[in-house]
Amino acid sequence: MVIDCHGHYTTAPKELQAFRDDQIAALKDPAQARPKTLASITDDQLRESVKPQLTFQTDRGTDVTIFSPRASAMAHHIGDAETSLDWSRHCNDLIHRVCALFPKNFVGVCQLPQTPGAPLANCVDELERCVNELGFIGCNLNPDPSGGHWTAPPLTDRFWYPFYEKMVELDVPAMVHVSASCNPNFHATGAHYLNADTTAFMQFLQSDLFKDFPTLRMIIPHGGGAVPYHWGRYRGLAQDLKRPLLTDLIRDNVFFDTCVYHQPGIDLLLKVVPADNILFGSEMVGAVRGIDPETGHYYDDTKRYVDQAAIGAADRRKILEDNTRKVYPRIAALVAAEV
Amino acid sequence: MVIDCHGHYTTAPKELQAFRDDQIAALKDPAQARPKTLASITDDQLRESVKPQLTFQTDRGTDVTIFSPRASAMAHHIGDAETSLDWSRHCNDLIHRVCALFPKNFVGVCQLPQTPGAPLANCVDELERCVNELGFIGCNLNPDPSGGHWTAPPLTDRFWYPFYEKMVELDVPAMVHVSASCNPNFHATGAHYLNADTTAFMQFLQSDLFKDFPTLRMIIPHGGGAVPYHWGRYRGLAQDLKRPLLTDLIRDNVFFDTCVYHQPGIDLLLKVVPADNILFGSEMVGAVRGIDPETGHYYDDTKRYVDQAAIGAADRRKILEDNTRKVYPRIAALVAAEV
Repeated sequence: MVIDCHGHYTTAPKELQAFRDDQIAALKDPAQARPKTLASITDDQLRESVKPQLTFQTDRGTDVTIFSPRASAMAHHIGDAETSLDWSRHCNDLIHRVCALFPKNFVGVCQLPQTPGAPLANCVDELERCVNELGFIGCNLNPDPSGGHWTAPPLTDRFWYPFYEKMVELDVPAMVHVSASCNPNFHATGAHYLNADTTAFMQFLQSDLFKDFPTLRMIIPHGGGAVPYHWGRYRGLAQDLKRPLLTDLIRDNVFFDTCVYHQPGIDLLLKVVPADNILFGSEMVGAVRGIDPETGHYYDDTKRYVDQAAIGAADRRKILEDNTRKVYPRIAALVAAEV
Repeated sequence: MVIDCHGHYTTAPKELQAFRDDQIAALKDPAQARPKTLASITDDQLRESVKPQLTFQTDRGTDVTIFSPRASAMAHHIGDAETSLDWSRHCNDLIHRVCALFPKNFVGVCQLPQTPGAPLANCVDELERCVNELGFIGCNLNPDPSGGHWTAPPLTDRFWYPFYEKMVELDVPAMVHVSASCNPNFHATGAHYLNADTTAFMQFLQSDLFKDFPTLRMIIPHGGGAVPYHWGRYRGLAQDLKRPLLTDLIRDNVFFDTCVYHQPGIDLLLKVVPADNILFGSEMVGAVRGIDPETGHYYDDTKRYVDQAAIGAADRRKILEDNTRKVYPRIAALVAAEV
């Protein structure tokens, strides 16, 4: 079985964006009532909307996608805590409906109602609702809800601890995933995403977060940003800073996905990062949608790269399935392992 | 001949830091007069101070280092335009003295007196002074003088054009290099530096800057941040955004150094980026100072990695010398090519 740990619902029916547009319009004109209800979306609309994902699963030979709301649309910098809560709940509810329609193909991960400067109580509640009521198995945690201004404390700050306590209690991991950038310096998928990945890793390297939370698990997406390419730099920085070896630092707590869109990048990732810390992911349908003229295949068909990498069958199996089951243990109740 | 395009004066005599400390103390207490003069530093002190760099040149088999003030100490976010101008001039003057003492070993590149929100007139003047009066051959340009808050316009904004006009007129390149981070999210050498590299590349990808300045040349240090590792992602983004091929986009204008501190990283860089766009650099004495227990050699001894990479002699020569001469043409008057 092949589990893709990183898929976003980038193809939701237009009613979802219409709700968001209404929300933003109401923010600009306080005389307008804030919209609360999403227009009716039928099951047929939902089925139609995920055809691209289902087709890619079939064409690429993957089975299950860990599925979350569109990351760039989380946009936690827009509005206030109420805005973010309403928006997150609708986005998560739609993910839940898709997972209920296609329980063999999708397992849910939630967006969190983060807001710059706001406490994390809403996030704790929404995580609990999504896990306990909707059957979700993890969350996407935004280290920069300001959208490119980086005003939140580092992920290793005690500010985040109440949320981590809930994650540990529910035994669910977080993918560290920023959203859109409202800073003109940062293209979202071409800079902000990768910068956040790099930043989070270095924060983890500097701190004893995982001594405080030995079972806390974080996935750093997009192949870990710049980290594997600069693995020597990080090994050297850890050494200069009298920190543990990188492999010990990350062992049970930090994982990279395989959202790297060319063979040399995947080869590097698999060469330097322990196989136990890599989860198969593609980010489809997502950041890059084209076909690579050098290969004739989609850039984000990352399974091809993993298949062609010079690794043994045992490591490949870990990356394609076993590690993801270990990091997201709640998947076991939803998707049985093949025997 | 081997030219290292990326060396910083991280070993300057303590008088330089004492001046900086006085500057900062005066900022905190407006009753204090701002210091203007650096305490006397003898030539012998300067000779002693660069012994580490000279030893590394000998031990590693490199000849000339393109030498600039300590990048993390530029700290453009401290004080105001006057602070930054005084500090930059002293730092640049010391580089000039070192280059005069060791003209075969060091060629100067300047720090710029940038300040958040300030116009670039001081930078234009200081670049002109350093090139025309001190014989410098380039500059380090900070895309984020705020030190991790990213409040400046993107490097492709017309804000920067007066400075680019002067660079083109003088025929000198800029290394895009941030300084210290005052944002607790970003470790300087472990996150902020690499993020800035990634960010700058994506800005260049999105814009027609090099149509406006066909001879403008930018070096992206630290192996290009996350870019070569995500070369497929960038090829795909360029395609989705209807931009030219990456190799055409960067051809005469964007270059990466080799400050990547392990063999697999250098191998990836040399595999995906055209050899014409890579300049040898080590960042010594710099970000990582230890010895890699896996190799028994310094992490930042990047010449070893280039020597061991699977490339031909012609490409190796380009990377170790010829490309740097092309990007920094003023070096020819200072360091003759071997015949």
